[in-house]
Amino acid sequence: MQIAVVLYPGMTALDAIGPYQVLGFAPGVEMRLVSHAPGPVVTDDEVLVLGATHSFADTPAPDIVLVPGGETGTEPAMRDSDLIAWLRQVHRTSRWTTSVCSGSLILAAAGILAGQPATTHWMVQSTLAELGALPQPDKRIVHTGRIATAAGVSAGIDLALWLVGEVWGRERAEIIQLYIEYDPQPPFTAGHPSTATERVRELARTEAADRTRRARPVGGAPAVWPATSR
Amino acid sequence: MQIAVVLYPGMTALDAIGPYQVLGFAPGVEMRLVSHAPGPVVTDDEVLVLGATHSFADTPAPDIVLVPGGETGTEPAMRDSDLIAWLRQVHRTSRWTTSVCSGSLILAAAGILAGQPATTHWMVQSTLAELGALPQPDKRIVHTGRIATAAGVSAGIDLALWLVGEVWGRERAEIIQLYIEYDPQPPFTAGHPSTATERVRELARTEAADRTRRARPVGGAPAVWPATSR
Repeated sequence: MQIAVVLYPGMTALDAIGPYQVLGFAPGVEMRLVSHAPGPVVTDDEVLVLGATHSFADTPAPDIVLVPGGETGTEPAMRDSDLIAWLRQVHRTSRWTTSVCSGSLILAAAGILAGQPATTHWMVQSTLAELGALPQPDKRIVHTGRIATAAGVSAGIDLALWLVGEVWGRERAEIIQLYIEYDPQPPFTAGHPSTATERVRELARTEAADRTRRARPVGGAPAVWPATSR
Repeated sequence: MQIAVVLYPGMTALDAIGPYQVLGFAPGVEMRLVSHAPGPVVTDDEVLVLGATHSFADTPAPDIVLVPGGETGTEPAMRDSDLIAWLRQVHRTSRWTTSVCSGSLILAAAGILAGQPATTHWMVQSTLAELGALPQPDKRIVHTGRIATAAGVSAGIDLALWLVGEVWGRERAEIIQLYIEYDPQPPFTAGHPSTATERVRELARTEAADRTRRARPVGGAPAVWPATSR
């Protein structure tokens, strides 16, 4: 069972690493972090770098594909013809094609969500509709056929546990849930637009727009660092 | 406000990336990923690589320090004299010294938790006691003075949101919680040893021990990859 988690410049790290950590504990999986080429990929805070292990070209038929979102990276990724072509290709044979957060906009840009129920980060549900999908903003995980999409950022952990339950069964999902001690106790209750105050919603929107405006062009500055660590 | 998240070979990625993602949205922070040297650090699945941005030596006085746990990496990190000396040094002036999962064993090895209430991954609470701390296995976050420790892996997200509330106030924590849409809906209820079945607990323990036994020596194979991505 080969699992390909897509990396691209300007992605949001937790979108990928939450589900990566969960899926990686499933038995007999080969985990891949795929991008244009193996090597460092800069995430959307312009500080944290994740390592791609394989290229798109070297990963023509993963069993499970997961596409993360990104604050600055989603729009460039939607216009990335190599990524879009690869998604169209791998979706033909994948067992599950999945996304977290605004990663669903990239699936939609590839035509994979046309007329399909799906979800995304709460701020961009209308964009998902414009791209031809049927947004389900009240659901944390939306699945139809062999497509599954999750809401914003942290929803990827719930998606991955659900997916493990579907593919490997409930006991396997429970073992992983216990191993990562996923017994969430958020200290506040603002995790969904319906439970946050209007002021918190507006500040979240305004600040996200400000960060995107201030960001350097994605992919402009390649990651470079010493080739080895201890 | 400088925040240093420690990276070391054989660490668990989500232990670090969960809180990193949360803390990085706080205003005016400089996020650093610190290790012996800048560059790639291989995590405990021997696939996923994270990039350190700074060395310990270049980061002598962070305001907040966070130490992740690691399935194969915690024990070597407890014997890493450079890391231990650095933790002792930075703890003298840090505003908060924190850990996730078995990261607390590393703080304990540095003498920082002697006689202090603390927590860790449910499998190693007894080790935490042997190292002189006072385990609080029923708490997801334990804080005393300027030390805060979290339970296993995913508890780092709760820790970081709580810490943002302490340092920047509740509204800031709520903005971040909403931005990462942290409205967890675990599809199963096995996230704590008290809610998992005996069989699931035993399988989780056995499999973790098997993985550790099969793992290659941590730090033996340095990360090497091409120096640039697009």
